[in-house]
Amino acid sequence: MQVTDTQWSQTEQEVAKAAFDKAYEREINALILEVREQASAIAHLDQMWGLHDFLSARRHDIDGKYDYRYSVLIFVFARLVKEGWLKLEELSGLDTDKIKKVAALSRM
Amino acid sequence: MQVTDTQWSQTEQEVAKAAFDKAYEREINALILEVREQASAIAHLDQMWGLHDFLSARRHDIDGKYDYRYSVLIFVFARLVKEGWLKLEELSGLDTDKIKKVAALSRM
Repeated sequence: MQVTDTQWSQTEQEVAKAAFDKAYEREINALILEVREQASAIAHLDQMWGLHDFLSARRHDIDGKYDYRYSVLIFVFARLVKEGWLKLEELSGLDTDKIKKVAALSRM
Repeated sequence: MQVTDTQWSQTEQEVAKAAFDKAYEREINALILEVREQASAIAHLDQMWGLHDFLSARRHDIDGKYDYRYSVLIFVFARLVKEGWLKLEELSGLDTDKIKKVAALSRM
């Protein structure tokens, strides 16, 4: 399955950008809620360093995950669908073949 | 001023440990309050990474600062007094010469 050297039409680029931003916003908002909740429950030092470790891991994860290069976007979308940040229907407007690839990869 | 190869009597060790623990508890409790406050105000991603940077810096700082070796304890106490986590009076019971050294160093 060839997924990297894919062409993206102007319309597809707009759909892709909107879907990408939507997933990002959802994940960040969920993370902010989680951090607020964890922080409000801190009573001991180990919990505070636990929050620090959690933030370090999430920052690394998010920095790596949200990579908006067309050469990797199919993989990015597949991961976002798999993790629940994006629904496959939100990619509606992309070429059918791309959506099929995302769907297949998201089930791996 | 020779401050490293100092002898600590049993009584001095008890006073020193109690003062050290007291300062640590104060600083940690203040930090927990600060983190809870910062976290509750997070609305945007940059504020969340700001909290992460803040925690990274404080963790590094605290790990380095609270060094309970008798060879460096005079310096540690001087820093804690300078930063307001310890009062000079709380070292009462230590040899007068040690207290003078802490006082002098804390004003540097």
